[in-house]
Amino acid sequence: MEAAFVAYATGNAQMPSKSYIDLPTYNGDFRSMPAYMAADDWDAAGIKWVNVHPDNPSTHDFPTVMGTMIYSDPETGFPLAIMDGTELTMRRTGAAAAVATDYLAVEDATSMGIVGAGVQSYTQLEAIAAVRPIEEVVISDPDDERVEKFVDTYAEEFAIRRGSIAAAAACDVLSTVTPVEAPIVETDDLCSHTHVNAMGADAAGKHELTDEVLLNALLVIDDFEQCIHSGEINVPWDNGVLTEEDIHGEIGEIATGKLAGRTPEDSVTVFDSTGLAIQDVAAAHVVYEASDEETAASSLIQTI
Amino acid sequence: MEAAFVAYATGNAQMPSKSYIDLPTYNGDFRSMPAYMAADDWDAAGIKWVNVHPDNPSTHDFPTVMGTMIYSDPETGFPLAIMDGTELTMRRTGAAAAVATDYLAVEDATSMGIVGAGVQSYTQLEAIAAVRPIEEVVISDPDDERVEKFVDTYAEEFAIRRGSIAAAAACDVLSTVTPVEAPIVETDDLCSHTHVNAMGADAAGKHELTDEVLLNALLVIDDFEQCIHSGEINVPWDNGVLTEEDIHGEIGEIATGKLAGRTPEDSVTVFDSTGLAIQDVAAAHVVYEASDEETAASSLIQTI
Repeated sequence: MEAAFVAYATGNAQMPSKSYIDLPTYNGDFRSMPAYMAADDWDAAGIKWVNVHPDNPSTHDFPTVMGTMIYSDPETGFPLAIMDGTELTMRRTGAAAAVATDYLAVEDATSMGIVGAGVQSYTQLEAIAAVRPIEEVVISDPDDERVEKFVDTYAEEFAIRRGSIAAAAACDVLSTVTPVEAPIVETDDLCSHTHVNAMGADAAGKHELTDEVLLNALLVIDDFEQCIHSGEINVPWDNGVLTEEDIHGEIGEIATGKLAGRTPEDSVTVFDSTGLAIQDVAAAHVVYEASDEETAASSLIQTI
Repeated sequence: MEAAFVAYATGNAQMPSKSYIDLPTYNGDFRSMPAYMAADDWDAAGIKWVNVHPDNPSTHDFPTVMGTMIYSDPETGFPLAIMDGTELTMRRTGAAAAVATDYLAVEDATSMGIVGAGVQSYTQLEAIAAVRPIEEVVISDPDDERVEKFVDTYAEEFAIRRGSIAAAAACDVLSTVTPVEAPIVETDDLCSHTHVNAMGADAAGKHELTDEVLLNALLVIDDFEQCIHSGEINVPWDNGVLTEEDIHGEIGEIATGKLAGRTPEDSVTVFDSTGLAIQDVAAAHVVYEASDEETAASSLIQTI
């Protein structure tokens, strides 16, 4: 995932704008996310085709979002594999938060808070625990069933407990993974050095953090255009409260060394993640390269 | 295919512009073609992801163009099937020519010429023979092997022979399916009522018919934007030789009855086909609806 951000920051990626097909009849849409990226010793191409149908859970017992990835050989165009893009999205989103956490959290971060115990919360914990020595986890969600499932999943690995949003926000690292349109995390909730991964906002009107949190933080984004339109910063941006001067830079600029990550002077840091098509092809590359006949027979990857 | 053209002409289709990923390192590109269309009693959505790598045949023994289609349920976004987009493209291209031929060729068309005996030539004959009582076929191509294969395939069904371009062009219906950049069919080659399906041009600089043929014909296109940029008319359009006044209309306008097809006053007619994403989802719909467990196990369709 870091190589994907570096490729984007150094001009070694192609990522046409997401294109949308709106389906007002079904209260849904489709999005196509094609991309190509070149790392130092590998490259990858493909397209993720993904829907957003908010009525799916209630009317069809289907997830709101489902994705399918076609992973292709850039040299010949041959479609190497079809993958479950839903699982891929969760993993690459966790990995993106982990890259940002690695550059922006304190080195000895041992506590992690998560607000929102939905499908995206699992890969947040798993990926971030791979870059920081997380021991203590606070999960916050009004839904008892979701919390119980999350706690049960990780009870053996971590000292995990349910807590308020403020308790989660007081940890060394916080990931917010909710679809809220009114901020739920305030400055007073955070500890002096919390790094926040703001993962939830994916459309105009959504944000999870108060303007005060964003304006006082070292603020890092994944992509300027996507973030001002649909990321955590889209609402204060539209209101003129937050401007380009308030943004430290893109995560790729930190990964390339052009910009610094956390320094001893920094207090709260925030990563605004919207999700880029190059992340999907990078994740598909990892899955494909790790696959063999056994894994290809499993549900995650189907080799053509 | 006719329903797809009607949906487009009546505003019941969504078709974002094709987006391209250029791969100069490999002399190739990827194109994504998402679409949604609604017919009277069905609708369809999906995306075709297709490459163009001209060096494939010589360096990798792969086709230049390979496609993969994800066919999705518009109501839920669920990916219903993954299909071979290459085969699908051939069939929908033949079907488009057949729709145009049905509206633009003389009723008693019994002879058909085909210039170019490549992969696209087969579905031209098969689809057009479904709308006109074709008996006699003239195939023209400098490649002996290709001609022999084509003739062998249809020797039992049709009175088929190899002929010059002029011999093919003198038939009631002519389909040109070549990638040439200098016109190969002239006015004098055609008979007084030939209907020409100009299928070959798919990029700026390509055209198969002389300007004179186009300017004197009843000229029908599939899509204005695509045709002036990459269709049969792109070269004379760019040169200012051919203007909007020379275009009768889009095939969808004829299919809806807004414009007339062939009338007794018409002589030569031309259909400029570039290929639309809605054609792919319409073709995928037909394949999916016709599928059962047996066909799903075959190579054309893989139900998820």
